[in-house]
Amino acid sequence: MTRCLDLESRLLHEIAQVKAIDVHSHVPAQEPFARSLRDLLGYHYYTELAHSAGTPKEVLAPDEPDEQAIPALLRGLEAAHSTVQYSWLVELSRELFGFSLPAGGLTAGNWRPLDEAVRKAAARPGRARELMELSRIKKVFLTNSFDEPLDGIDRQLFVPSLRADPLVFTLADVEAREALERASSICVRDGKSLRDALAAVLERFVRAGACSVAISLPPGFHAAALSDQELNSCLKGGRRTSARQAGALPGGVLLVLAGLCQDFGLPMQVMYGAIRNAYEHGVLQGRDLPQAGDTLSGLLPLFNGFPGLTFCLSVLSESQAQELTSYGWMLHNVVPSGHWWYANVPAYIERDLAARLQSVPATKLIGYYSDMYKLEFGLPKFGMYRRILARVLAEEFVEPGFGSEEDALAIARLLLRDNAARIFRLGD
Amino acid sequence: MTRCLDLESRLLHEIAQVKAIDVHSHVPAQEPFARSLRDLLGYHYYTELAHSAGTPKEVLAPDEPDEQAIPALLRGLEAAHSTVQYSWLVELSRELFGFSLPAGGLTAGNWRPLDEAVRKAAARPGRARELMELSRIKKVFLTNSFDEPLDGIDRQLFVPSLRADPLVFTLADVEAREALERASSICVRDGKSLRDALAAVLERFVRAGACSVAISLPPGFHAAALSDQELNSCLKGGRRTSARQAGALPGGVLLVLAGLCQDFGLPMQVMYGAIRNAYEHGVLQGRDLPQAGDTLSGLLPLFNGFPGLTFCLSVLSESQAQELTSYGWMLHNVVPSGHWWYANVPAYIERDLAARLQSVPATKLIGYYSDMYKLEFGLPKFGMYRRILARVLAEEFVEPGFGSEEDALAIARLLLRDNAARIFRLGD
Amino acid sequence: MTRCLDLESRLLHEIAQVKAIDVHSHVPAQEPFARSLRDLLGYHYYTELAHSAGTPKEVLAPDEPDEQAIPALLRGLEAAHSTVQYSWLVELSRELFGFSLPAGGLTAGNWRPLDEAVRKAAARPGRARELMELSRIKKVFLTNSFDEPLDGIDRQLFVPSLRADPLVFTLADVEAREALERASSICVRDGKSLRDALAAVLERFVRAGACSVAISLPPGFHAAALSDQELNSCLKGGRRTSARQAGALPGGVLLVLAGLCQDFGLPMQVMYGAIRNAYEHGVLQGRDLPQAGDTLSGLLPLFNGFPGLTFCLSVLSESQAQELTSYGWMLHNVVPSGHWWYANVPAYIERDLAARLQSVPATKLIGYYSDMYKLEFGLPKFGMYRRILARVLAEEFVEPGFGSEEDALAIARLLLRDNAARIFRLGD
Repeated sequence: MTRCLDLESRLLHEIAQVKAIDVHSHVPAQEPFARSLRDLLGYHYYTELAHSAGTPKEVLAPDEPDEQAIPALLRGLEAAHSTVQYSWLVELSRELFGFSLPAGGLTAGNWRPLDEAVRKAAARPGRARELMELSRIKKVFLTNSFDEPLDGIDRQLFVPSLRADPLVFTLADVEAREALERASSICVRDGKSLRDALAAVLERFVRAGACSVAISLPPGFHAAALSDQELNSCLKGGRRTSARQAGALPGGVLLVLAGLCQDFGLPMQVMYGAIRNAYEHGVLQGRDLPQAGDTLSGLLPLFNGFPGLTFCLSVLSESQAQELTSYGWMLHNVVPSGHWWYANVPAYIERDLAARLQSVPATKLIGYYSDMYKLEFGLPKFGMYRRILARVLAEEFVEPGFGSEEDALAIARLLLRDNAARIFRLGD
Repeated sequence: MTRCLDLESRLLHEIAQVKAIDVHSHVPAQEPFARSLRDLLGYHYYTELAHSAGTPKEVLAPDEPDEQAIPALLRGLEAAHSTVQYSWLVELSRELFGFSLPAGGLTAGNWRPLDEAVRKAAARPGRARELMELSRIKKVFLTNSFDEPLDGIDRQLFVPSLRADPLVFTLADVEAREALERASSICVRDGKSLRDALAAVLERFVRAGACSVAISLPPGFHAAALSDQELNSCLKGGRRTSARQAGALPGGVLLVLAGLCQDFGLPMQVMYGAIRNAYEHGVLQGRDLPQAGDTLSGLLPLFNGFPGLTFCLSVLSESQAQELTSYGWMLHNVVPSGHWWYANVPAYIERDLAARLQSVPATKLIGYYSDMYKLEFGLPKFGMYRRILARVLAEEFVEPGFGSEEDALAIARLLLRDNAARIFRLGD
Repeated sequence: MTRCLDLESRLLHEIAQVKAIDVHSHVPAQEPFARSLRDLLGYHYYTELAHSAGTPKEVLAPDEPDEQAIPALLRGLEAAHSTVQYSWLVELSRELFGFSLPAGGLTAGNWRPLDEAVRKAAARPGRARELMELSRIKKVFLTNSFDEPLDGIDRQLFVPSLRADPLVFTLADVEAREALERASSICVRDGKSLRDALAAVLERFVRAGACSVAISLPPGFHAAALSDQELNSCLKGGRRTSARQAGALPGGVLLVLAGLCQDFGLPMQVMYGAIRNAYEHGVLQGRDLPQAGDTLSGLLPLFNGFPGLTFCLSVLSESQAQELTSYGWMLHNVVPSGHWWYANVPAYIERDLAARLQSVPATKLIGYYSDMYKLEFGLPKFGMYRRILARVLAEEFVEPGFGSEEDALAIARLLLRDNAARIFRLGD
C-alpha cells in the first residue's frame, strides 16, 4: 500500500506537468480572468451553494455591491466547506494568489487581502498567459454565439467554438431567424437556405480558428431528420410556425447542422441532459437540474446518421454514466468527454473514469474540461482531475499489472492533451 | 495508510459519542422495545431474507408460534450471514444483551438464551431510555396516523410525526373521508372544508409535539395542483368520486397539505419511489420494491410551489441517488435525508454519502434515520452509518486536506444531530 | 492494511482453486476451443474495440485473411491496452500458451509465435478438458437452438441450454413457426398446440441433459399473459398475424414457456436489456447497446406468475444494478446472476458484488458466467472475477468482522459452484 501511494505520487508528479487542452469553457476572450474577488465568488457554484444554504437570493444578485454581497456569500459558504467547489476556491487562492486561507476559511472578516491580491494580479500584463502557464493548460476553448464578433481573440491561448443552442432551439421564432439572416446574409425560407445560412456561419467560425461546435440537449431529446418538405413547411411561414412544427424543428435543424459539421470537419460537442429553469427560485445560472432515468438512445439517429463526424459526448445524470461509457466503447464516432457539472464530483468522477479506462480505447477519451467562466478555475478543476487520474491509474492500471508507469503516463497524456489535439485538429 | 486508519479510528471514537436524532422510525410509543427474541426476528428484514432464501411464508407468519417460527427463520437466515441486516442482529445481541453469537451464528439450537436475555431486559424499568442511551440516540421520531390518540407519548424520548399517506391517497374513498371528518370534526365537502379538516389534524399534532409530516410517494408520482373548482368536484360527490377525479386527487391533496405544513412550520419528510405490493408472494411488509429509471422531476411543482417549506427527501432507487444529491445541492428547501431501505446498504451509502459531502452544504444533510420498528435496531443501524461516516470523512475530507479532524467532527455532528434539531425546531 | 492485503491473497489462493460452473456461454460443443490466434482475436470484444478505435470494419470481417486482418486488428487494439478485455488476452496468452506478451503488447510484428502456439495446442488430444482444468472450470453451459441436433455433446464438460429467443420473438413469422413444427412434429395452430410443440422441444432438451432455458429480453419488455383466445387468434392465421397481434405475442409465448419450464423444473436464465442493432455501423456482433433508464418492473408478471420457477436474472445497464440486487433480496425465485457484457467491467463488478453480498442471501447468487465463445476465455474472465471476489470478501466481509476466512470461502464456493449446481440440479 505504501508502494501504491508512492506510485500514485510519482504519477501525479508527472501528470501535473502535462499541459492540458481544455475543450469547453465559458471564458470570455476579452475578460478571461477575474478583476476582483467578486469575479471569483460570482461563479454560480458559489452563489448557488450560498443560496442553497439559506442566503437570500437578492443579496447574491450581480448588481449588489461587494460590501453587502461578499460577506453574505461567505457566511452562506461556511456551510459548504466540505464541498469540492469550495476546495477549488481554497486551491486557487493558494496557488494563484499565494493566499493561504486560515483555518476557518474565507470569512466576512478576512476577505479584503485576497480581493487586493486578485486586483493586483489582474493588473499585471500577460495575466491570461501567466494563469494558463501556472495551470498547465495549453489552450482553452471558448463558447461563442453565432452572431458575435470573432476578431481580437488571442489564438495562441484560445480556440473559438460555436455554441449552437440558439440555432437549434429557437429558429421557430422569427427574431432568431432574422438574427441568423443578419449573421449569414442569407434569407432563410426553406431547407436549402437554412443549410446555406448555417454553412455561412460555420465558414466564418472556421476562418476565425474555431475547432468545434457545441450544443446542450435536454433530457428526452430525440434527434429525427425532417424531410426537405417538412423543413420547408416549418420555415416558409415567414413569421411563426405552428407549435407542432416548432416541436419537430430542433431535431431537424440539428441533423442539418451535423451534416455541415461533418462536411467542415468540425467535431460536435454534445452535452446531454440538463433541464433548464427547473428550479424557479434559483440564483442566476443556478436553475438547471439533471434528470435521472433518461437514455441516450434518442441520439442514435445522430450517431448512426453521421459516421464521418466525431461526437464528444457528456452526460449530466450519473444514471447514464455507464451508458455513455458503453457508447464510447462501441461507437467509433462517440468520444466520452469530461465529467460535466452535476457529475463533476470526485465520488462520481473516480468510478466513471475507472470504467472508461477499463472498457474504452484510450485514444477515445477526452479526460476533462473546465466549463469555467474565468481562467482562475482551470488550475483547481484540472488539479482535482489530475489527482483522481493519478489514483485511478495507480490502483486500476499499474498495480494490477495492466501496464507500466510509463504506459500509465502515456494514457494520461492522451486524456489530458493528445486526444483533444488530434480530434479537434489543433495545430502545433 | 496507517495514518489514515488511525485517523478513521479517532474520528469513529468521537462520532460514536454523538447523541443522534432519529428523524424517522416506526417505533410504537407504547411498545417501543422487544419483549422477546421473536419481536426482533419478526422485523421484516429477517422474515423477507429467510423467505427469499427458501423458508415457506406460512411458518414466518406473525401468528405462528415461536417454537416453529424461530427455528425455521434461523435456518433460513443461515444463507444470509453475509448481509448487513444479519450483522445488525449480531451487533445488537452483543451490545444490548451481552450475547456474543457463536461462530455459526444464531441457530435453531442456541436461540433460547438470547430469548431469555431479551425477555429479562424488557422487564427492567426505564428500558426504552436505557436502550436509547446505549445507542447514543437522543430522540426518536414516531410514525402516527392522523386519527390515533397522541397522549401518553414520552416526549422526552419520542417526537410524534404525522403519516400523511392515507390522507393523500385514500380520500376518494368515502370511508377514509369519514374517518378524517371524525378526526377533525369537520364535514369535508369541498376544497375549503378539506383544508380546514387537514388544518385541524395538524393543529392536534402540533399540540402533541409533532415536528414533521411524513409521506411515501410511489414512482411516477406527479405533484400537480388542483383548482378549487376541481377539488370541489372531487369531493362534493359525497360518496364516490369518478376514477379520473380519484387519480388527480392525491396530487391536489398533497399540495393543499404542503401549504398547511408551510403555514404550520412543519417540514415534510418525503420518501420517494416504493412500488407497493409489487411482489405478490412476499411476507408481511415484504412486498414492496424499488424501481429503477424514475426521476424526481415530477415533484418539482411541490418544491417550487412552497419555497418556505423544507422537504427532507429520501429516494429508494440507486439510479436516483445523484439526482437527490443535486436537488439538495441546488434547491434551498430540499434536504437529502438518510439512506432508505433498499439503498440502506453500505456499498451504496458510502458513495452516496461521499457525493453529498462533496457537493451539498453540510447544514443541509440529515445523515441517517433508522426506519426501525423496535428501539433495539437503532444501535446497529446508526452504528453502521457512524462507521461509514468516519471512513468517508477520513478518506474524502481530512486526508485530502479539505479540513481538520475538528472540522470533520463538526460535520458529523451536523449530520447526526444538529441539522435535525434545527430543521425540525426541536427544543433542546 | 498489510494485514488486509495478506488476507486478500490468502482468500484468492483458495478461491482460485474452486472449480467453477459456468452457467452461460456461447461455446460450440463441436469447436469449443481456438484453432488459431484469429479464433481468439475474432472475439467481438476485440473487433469492436479495434473498430471503435478507428480500424475500418471491412478489414475486420470474418472472411478477411489473417495476413490483413490480424495486423490491422492489433494496430487498432494498441489504443485499448488499458481495457479489461485486452487484459484477458494478455492473461490467456501467458497462462494457456506460456506466451508472455512483450512490453508493447501483441503487435503486427510479433503475433506469429503466439499463433503457432495456439495451433499447436489445438492439435493436442483432450484440449477442451485440459483448458477447463487449467481454468478451474468444471462445467460449461452451452447455448443451443431449439432445432439443432444435441447428440455428440461431451456431457462431462458441457451442459446444453435452450436459447428461447427465436421461439419467443419470431413466432409471428410463418417460417419460424414452420421450423418449430418441424422440430416438434406438432402443427402449431392455437395456444394448445403451441404449448404442446414447446413441450416437445423441452422434452428433447431434457433428454439431452439440458438444465436451463435462456432468453435475452429487450429494454421495455412487458411480460403479459395472453388468454387462450388471444393466443389462438395470433396463431390460427396460418401465414401472417397482424402487427398488433405480433406485438403482443412475445409476452404471451414467454409466459407459456415459463409455465412449461416450471413443469419441467428448468430454471430460466433471463438476460435483460440489450437493444439489438442499435449501432448500424458496428462490426459483426458489435451492434447492440445497453439502455439506461429502464426498469425490471415489466417482468413482475413473470416472477409473480411462476412462483415455482427460478429465474436467474442479469441486467445490462448499471442504472438497474441495484434494482436487480433488490429483486434478488426480496423475490424468492429471482437469483441475481453474473455481470453481463457492458456491466462486466471491474469498476461495476466490484460495487455490484459488494451490494449483493450485503443484502441478498448468499445461496441466491450466481457469481459469474463467462458468456465466452471459445473456452480459452474462461480462465481470464473467471480470473478477473475471482480477484474481485477475493478483494470484496476481504474488505467487506472478513475485515469488518462479519465472518471468518472460512466463512468467506464458503460464500465463494456458493457463488462459483454450489449455487449453480443446486439451482440447475447438476448431478455429481
